[in-house]
Amino acid sequence: MSRTPRSLMIHDDDLALVTDLYQLTMAAAYFEHDRNRPATFEMFIRTMPKNRGFLLAAGLEQVVHYLSALRFTDSALRYLRELPPFRRVSSAFFDYLREFRFTGEVHAIPEGTIVFPGEPLVRITAPLIEAQIVETYILATINYQTLVATKAARVVHAARGRPVVDFGTRRAHGPQAGVLAARATYIGGCVATSNVFAGYELGLPVVGTMAHSFMMTFPTEREAFAAYVDSFPEHTTLLIDTYDTLEGARLATEFGDRILGVRIDSGDLLALSREVRRILDEAGLNRTRIVASGDLNEYKIDALLREGAPIDLFGVGTELVTSRDEPTLSGVYKVVEHEVDGQPVPVVKLSSDKETYPGRKQVFRQESPSGAFTGDLIALAEEDQPGTPLLEPIMRGGRLVQELPDLPTIQARARDQLQRLPEEYRALSDPPPYPVRYSQRLQALKDQAEALAHQRQNGPATGS
Amino acid sequence: MSRTPRSLMIHDDDLALVTDLYQLTMAAAYFEHDRNRPATFEMFIRTMPKNRGFLLAAGLEQVVHYLSALRFTDSALRYLRELPPFRRVSSAFFDYLREFRFTGEVHAIPEGTIVFPGEPLVRITAPLIEAQIVETYILATINYQTLVATKAARVVHAARGRPVVDFGTRRAHGPQAGVLAARATYIGGCVATSNVFAGYELGLPVVGTMAHSFMMTFPTEREAFAAYVDSFPEHTTLLIDTYDTLEGARLATEFGDRILGVRIDSGDLLALSREVRRILDEAGLNRTRIVASGDLNEYKIDALLREGAPIDLFGVGTELVTSRDEPTLSGVYKVVEHEVDGQPVPVVKLSSDKETYPGRKQVFRQESPSGAFTGDLIALAEEDQPGTPLLEPIMRGGRLVQELPDLPTIQARARDQLQRLPEEYRALSDPPPYPVRYSQRLQALKDQAEALAHQRQNGPATGS
Repeated sequence: MSRTPRSLMIHDDDLALVTDLYQLTMAAAYFEHDRNRPATFEMFIRTMPKNRGFLLAAGLEQVVHYLSALRFTDSALRYLRELPPFRRVSSAFFDYLREFRFTGEVHAIPEGTIVFPGEPLVRITAPLIEAQIVETYILATINYQTLVATKAARVVHAARGRPVVDFGTRRAHGPQAGVLAARATYIGGCVATSNVFAGYELGLPVVGTMAHSFMMTFPTEREAFAAYVDSFPEHTTLLIDTYDTLEGARLATEFGDRILGVRIDSGDLLALSREVRRILDEAGLNRTRIVASGDLNEYKIDALLREGAPIDLFGVGTELVTSRDEPTLSGVYKVVEHEVDGQPVPVVKLSSDKETYPGRKQVFRQESPSGAFTGDLIALAEEDQPGTPLLEPIMRGGRLVQELPDLPTIQARARDQLQRLPEEYRALSDPPPYPVRYSQRLQALKDQAEALAHQRQNGPATGS
Repeated sequence: MSRTPRSLMIHDDDLALVTDLYQLTMAAAYFEHDRNRPATFEMFIRTMPKNRGFLLAAGLEQVVHYLSALRFTDSALRYLRELPPFRRVSSAFFDYLREFRFTGEVHAIPEGTIVFPGEPLVRITAPLIEAQIVETYILATINYQTLVATKAARVVHAARGRPVVDFGTRRAHGPQAGVLAARATYIGGCVATSNVFAGYELGLPVVGTMAHSFMMTFPTEREAFAAYVDSFPEHTTLLIDTYDTLEGARLATEFGDRILGVRIDSGDLLALSREVRRILDEAGLNRTRIVASGDLNEYKIDALLREGAPIDLFGVGTELVTSRDEPTLSGVYKVVEHEVDGQPVPVVKLSSDKETYPGRKQVFRQESPSGAFTGDLIALAEEDQPGTPLLEPIMRGGRLVQELPDLPTIQARARDQLQRLPEEYRALSDPPPYPVRYSQRLQALKDQAEALAHQRQNGPATGS
């Protein structure tokens, strides 16, 4: 066997190559044309996905790891030099890449903060090449975790205080996405995950019940239940729908309070949960919990609880980790300022429907005396505006300037933020748009930059 | 700074923990109750997603890597022993895990093969614990790559022979998903990816043009174009929509045949591509290609080409790597047989809408004399049926028994398979269901196993 199967895992040594080729070709052209001067880029979500009234920022810690670890190995450089477009590029560029480190400044909105379209989640100021080539990885990281943290917050909201756990790894977009999803769902308010690696690596609570295969490999359902209760007397949730759910529930009562709960994974969850509750209660097992799973999402959970389904805990998988109804965020990373003759110049893009606002920005979150959020103002970073500024310094000179919060702290921040967001914006369907305004100075700068941009296409205006 | 930011990358040493907790609790209960005897599990897709007429299998190589590399490290074992459910579990179980290796047999349908719901893509026969705990990783791997390879085949089909390239990494569900997507989109017929790591690791062709930020950091569009052409004289595709697309096209003609193409990333692609073609042709640049990108998918590409849009190459991102219209596959992994008293016993699940077929299976692909596919028959593996058997032996005793094909071979297989699938099943919308039948013996075995299963719930039937 000459070919070894590839894992396609990304190691720290590989990080610099996890980017789009054009980032590196642009880097070479910047290098060769003396453009590697300070620039500022901002990452923001362009538009709100359907039925979302807010977004929950997540993924910053993995961005910081990436920026800290970024290197070009000799092996990576050998590979790049052999690529057809790079064959004529000067050796000096590859010498530059060999010494490449991220040396820039990062400001960001902390994870677990509610954000809205147009608001910079991450702002990077660095020599142009450094700021440019990190785009792809930053977007992939923040887009996905923010997507899933937001979805989790919706599902948790629908569950009205009942715990929600992440069961999604098997349906995530690859094994790594399952780990990222475990982190993001916890930020969004899930209490635990089934992903053991996420527990090991992040200290998240891990939970699980049993699968149908367990039931099917014992001669009878009773023997399967008995074996599991014997091995895990204080931790057992019995899966009761392998054959007949109500029969399974009756069988479960034989184990009395040695079981914590029963799980229903198929069928009419409303009708079955009511029947199962009755069976458990009649056996005096009022404290035995009913766990529901099986293609659940915020809409189904909301409907079940509106009907009064006696479900105590929800296990949510596919819909949570793929954000199935809206499986992507329109996160973009745009240059907003670059240096010309030693002076920062704000810039904008004019492409149809893809305009940007120029300059380094800050978001000011305004609130009522009781602490309820009342609106956001996007302004220039140097402006002094009312409200709490959301972007904080994270890295300077390529180094972390503040210890990043742990996950319970991030989750608590998200919970606090969500409580302060008026209920209407947390609606599961058709929430109104949250009031986000741009400052007058920013708006004026945009108009000015647009006028300049029109001239950039064909050189200075010629009076036409 | 006491906390180091976590990458959440999965290394080979971590693979055994990338699973759902219940796999490991079930393993402990199997171990303690002497159930670790041979069993067979099959992975299949339960239902066809909307508008799909076929699925394209992908991801097997990463499954083989996983099964080959699976180990529990001392650190992993220490972690597990401290988890509350495991505190009472015997040391013997952890001694077993310390020596754990995958020693089983794997049959699978080769990557790049067309498959349909119900057909086992992977079949694993191994001691029950080995066969059980690999479920989560196998599902995450095959589900995602199959989802994306299928989507890519649809997009490539819509492009009617024009090349399609993967630009999706930034919108994939995390950086790792971007790499897996690059692999899967290539299998589905894309000619290249923008993901440099995928090129480095897998030898895929990598391509790229330039971003709006490049344009915006030069004083004028002309200077930006000139710098890029200067650095990449034979490889330049100019992005022309940063300011005004038609002005950008006129400017591009100044560079004559030193540019390969122009890219339009926004606006009305039909109208713009026609105008841009005219501008290029009038400048005598008949061979300069027009590249289109910007939230494209198979439906939009089909509509553009039906209208005769003169687009030569499509760059597709978000929609491709998230399979946005159907972002998940209902892939499941079910026990179909286990050993009792030294004899294999076929088993089934009865849960509502989630029934399974028992026994080790094979898929026979039947075709017309001209080689066109006419229907599939799912039968027991031991049956002798007409048609080409799709599942092949991949691993035995935990070791690879055949060298896995390289990606160009897999892509060629997919192309051949798609050509042999009658056109109606490749329709982008509402394709008819492909004829997939179950053999009489398999159907009879299912009926028999279901009757037995009904008895399993409450022990042997008592005449009722």
